[in-house]
Amino acid sequence: MQDTQDFPDHRKIKIAKVGIKDVSHPIFFSDIDENETVTFPSTASFSFFVELSATKKGTHMSRFPLILYEFAPYFNLIKLEEMARNINQKLESRISFIETKFTYFYEKLAPVSKTKGLADIKIHIKIKTNSQNNLTETQLIIQIPVKSLCPCSKAISEYGAHSQRSHITITLWNPKISIKECIRIAENSASSAIYPVLKRVDEKFVTEKAYNTPRFVEDLVREAAIQIKEKSNSSRFTVSAENFESIHNHNAWALVSSDDLM
Amino acid sequence: MQDTQDFPDHRKIKIAKVGIKDVSHPIFFSDIDENETVTFPSTASFSFFVELSATKKGTHMSRFPLILYEFAPYFNLIKLEEMARNINQKLESRISFIETKFTYFYEKLAPVSKTKGLADIKIHIKIKTNSQNNLTETQLIIQIPVKSLCPCSKAISEYGAHSQRSHITITLWNPKISIKECIRIAENSASSAIYPVLKRVDEKFVTEKAYNTPRFVEDLVREAAIQIKEKSNSSRFTVSAENFESIHNHNAWALVSSDDLM
Amino acid sequence: MQDTQDFPDHRKIKIAKVGIKDVSHPIFFSDIDENETVTFPSTASFSFFVELSATKKGTHMSRFPLILYEFAPYFNLIKLEEMARNINQKLESRISFIETKFTYFYEKLAPVSKTKGLADIKIHIKIKTNSQNNLTETQLIIQIPVKSLCPCSKAISEYGAHSQRSHITITLWNPKISIKECIRIAENSASSAIYPVLKRVDEKFVTEKAYNTPRFVEDLVREAAIQIKEKSNSSRFTVSAENFESIHNHNAWALVSSDDLM
Amino acid sequence: MQDTQDFPDHRKIKIAKVGIKDVSHPIFFSDIDENETVTFPSTASFSFFVELSATKKGTHMSRFPLILYEFAPYFNLIKLEEMARNINQKLESRISFIETKFTYFYEKLAPVSKTKGLADIKIHIKIKTNSQNNLTETQLIIQIPVKSLCPCSKAISEYGAHSQRSHITITLWNPKISIKECIRIAENSASSAIYPVLKRVDEKFVTEKAYNTPRFVEDLVREAAIQIKEKSNSSRFTVSAENFESIHNHNAWALVSSDDLM
Repeated sequence: MQDTQDFPDHRKIKIAKVGIKDVSHPIFFSDIDENETVTFPSTASFSFFVELSATKKGTHMSRFPLILYEFAPYFNLIKLEEMARNINQKLESRISFIETKFTYFYEKLAPVSKTKGLADIKIHIKIKTNSQNNLTETQLIIQIPVKSLCPCSKAISEYGAHSQRSHITITLWNPKISIKECIRIAENSASSAIYPVLKRVDEKFVTEKAYNTPRFVEDLVREAAIQIKEKSNSSRFTVSAENFESIHNHNAWALVSSDDLM
Repeated sequence: MQDTQDFPDHRKIKIAKVGIKDVSHPIFFSDIDENETVTFPSTASFSFFVELSATKKGTHMSRFPLILYEFAPYFNLIKLEEMARNINQKLESRISFIETKFTYFYEKLAPVSKTKGLADIKIHIKIKTNSQNNLTETQLIIQIPVKSLCPCSKAISEYGAHSQRSHITITLWNPKISIKECIRIAENSASSAIYPVLKRVDEKFVTEKAYNTPRFVEDLVREAAIQIKEKSNSSRFTVSAENFESIHNHNAWALVSSDDLM
Repeated sequence: MQDTQDFPDHRKIKIAKVGIKDVSHPIFFSDIDENETVTFPSTASFSFFVELSATKKGTHMSRFPLILYEFAPYFNLIKLEEMARNINQKLESRISFIETKFTYFYEKLAPVSKTKGLADIKIHIKIKTNSQNNLTETQLIIQIPVKSLCPCSKAISEYGAHSQRSHITITLWNPKISIKECIRIAENSASSAIYPVLKRVDEKFVTEKAYNTPRFVEDLVREAAIQIKEKSNSSRFTVSAENFESIHNHNAWALVSSDDLM
Repeated sequence: MQDTQDFPDHRKIKIAKVGIKDVSHPIFFSDIDENETVTFPSTASFSFFVELSATKKGTHMSRFPLILYEFAPYFNLIKLEEMARNINQKLESRISFIETKFTYFYEKLAPVSKTKGLADIKIHIKIKTNSQNNLTETQLIIQIPVKSLCPCSKAISEYGAHSQRSHITITLWNPKISIKECIRIAENSASSAIYPVLKRVDEKFVTEKAYNTPRFVEDLVREAAIQIKEKSNSSRFTVSAENFESIHNHNAWALVSSDDLM
């Protein structure tokens, strides 16, 4: 049977990335310092790409889901990087790319009553591996929901201050700190952490803590940047924050890059 | 050329709705009491369906975009209902359905400084017309963003109270009140209205107003229900509210139905 | 500490549904005839509501995530219905509602080479339980991706026929047939099933099978309706189909209801 | 009244981007060679950011919607770049950023019957302006829906070939070619253009044209890259394509970058 993909291509145009997008798969993802047996399962969306040389007509798309099927369901960053190298082998490519997005769950206690619940954050990972120089670039992107309370609103008002849910997004290149450390950093940078379950004693605590810790969207990213720099040393990172403003129908957003901190 | 759709169908199964979904089109939509020349343009997504009798193999899909092209871009509820009747004629159907979703814009002044900006709400309309008994059922669904501040958080805390953006959604069957009246009702039911532009004097006003007007998600829908019932008399309606809680990563939600108010 | 929610409410308006939306949680969902130990994990989004009597100011939102935490992660329809009854107990409500959405995974072999991969479909479940008359209404909504090939395009063209990905959505009230049976019905109604992995022998099979089995969007729902009626006897159901038309930037859609088959 | 944003900041961390996201506004966007009076209206989502120096506590968020209100609704690339420079003035910033996303409409005739309808594509624009060196970088991102038919499926099957809707996305840095030229290029690279309205003679034409013009996702981007390079000379660009595969529940995707064509 004819293998059209293996035909030579006469247009002589290299394809930087070609592959498949949005493959759903169950996974168990464990943090840097975490044993895979204790993690909660999740549903990941995967994308796989390879570089295609200028002389080949097409890549072999069916090999990607087979490789995923072989490597799944237990993953951490090291195992994803192994899978990226395996793609280069099986597809005879120079460069391979993996992207995956999933919800990461962890147990979290209410601040006063210590009531237990399951918290969730969003993880996005991008891996690029070069089989010739054996270099791998890994981006770990973590989106953590927190609470922000506006310093301006507090300063100018006789009582109260508007607050809202915010997302702090930390992007680490070749990360040296754990997901749980990033969650702690984001929550320390915010007006307050948020929780899956709050009894009344906890709600009082969160309300007063936020009122005592007003933060602009600019403060969220600056506070987080200081802490990430301290922990991750010379690694590259960005941190952004988005406030779902409770006084507008649009959001406030800010970003600090480690490039500006050198 | 063979017209496969016009073949008889031997399975004898009536199709309740068949047509096309998610057709984008520019529109100018005017409120009940509004002149079409003063409305802001918007981008609508349209869906069109007809009932198909048990004996016909297929409907003529290409007629729907032609009818839309003919009727667009100036619309109000009456014109949409006309278009629904026109579909029954052109597709020789007993029942036709139109759905459309779009953003509705209007000018809104900041509460103290009176600074002008453009506010936006979401509109969703569903029309069903029966050509035999000439009855039309029209649903107007209006989603208005507002601010809510938690009465429990205020009552138990020494200072502050958590607040968040909320959506109030009013659904009217064969509506007798205007979109702008629904916006007023939603804003009167909330802890505060929200605005496209706020100067500092306005932000102080909104913060203090919200602190003085705490509302649970249950209060939002009850307050709105009382006002809608008053204005719309015996018409059927529902009102729901969703709070994007600033202390959780999930939302609070409530719904009142006019069926329970009789 | 003051319990604002427990205050009496003087507006005398019953709230039909109040609770929390979009709580993420890991689950293992097993089919009617399936042992929970063999199912793949998934990430579910849950919503929980109760009816609130006209005399109560608010419901106790924090009890919902506690109940979920207690019942998770192993679920099937019966266990979800138990959780709905438990909500009525713990929140002292007459009616409770659960909604959940998740991806359901199952192993699927390529049609000729028998290469194994993981297929995914979307599940949406809605449960309503009345604690007074002990009646429960359960809706199981299953969205199955398939392939459709246009009979008109085939009939009028000298070669080829346009095809596209389609979604068949089966909604069952108090379902008596399994998820896997619904998948078989949807695939038998389509021009062809679709697969996670296809070798070239499989792609040839799927292409020719689809060309030999042209189906309008109207055919998809009629074929499926006949089979569901046969299997589920007198139960209520609807079946809809959406074609992501490869010749348009909009979709074709159709729905058959069991109400029209009596 | 205290201006908290104007306070000095002692953390000494520059903020690369800070501003507001997802502001909805009606616009009339005209192509390079187009008169603004003939364009169709649309609904745009805008984001505005500025760089914030390490010594300032906060930016003045309320100025962004005021600037938009002043410049809207008539836009083209030149006017958007003017608005970016105006932001630098009004917010006293060194660098400003504008992003906007909207649907662009244009009239399109069916290929044989010449039936008229309204076609829609997605536009995404990113502008970055530096007030010190007066340099502006503008990215124009255009997503055009087309039809692809698989060469492998055609080659190995006795009849038929699977086809699907595809998106071709062209990204131009400081674009020299028009939106309409990009649409022509994308459609010339595909198995066939797609249309808002097709009569049967048109459907026959599209079906046969696609069968005669099979294209892998790799072919879509290579064919488009050759044409864009020719027209846009030495400008930087990328072109990607996504096939919503009608034989899988995942998509195929490829990208060519002008960096690889030098």
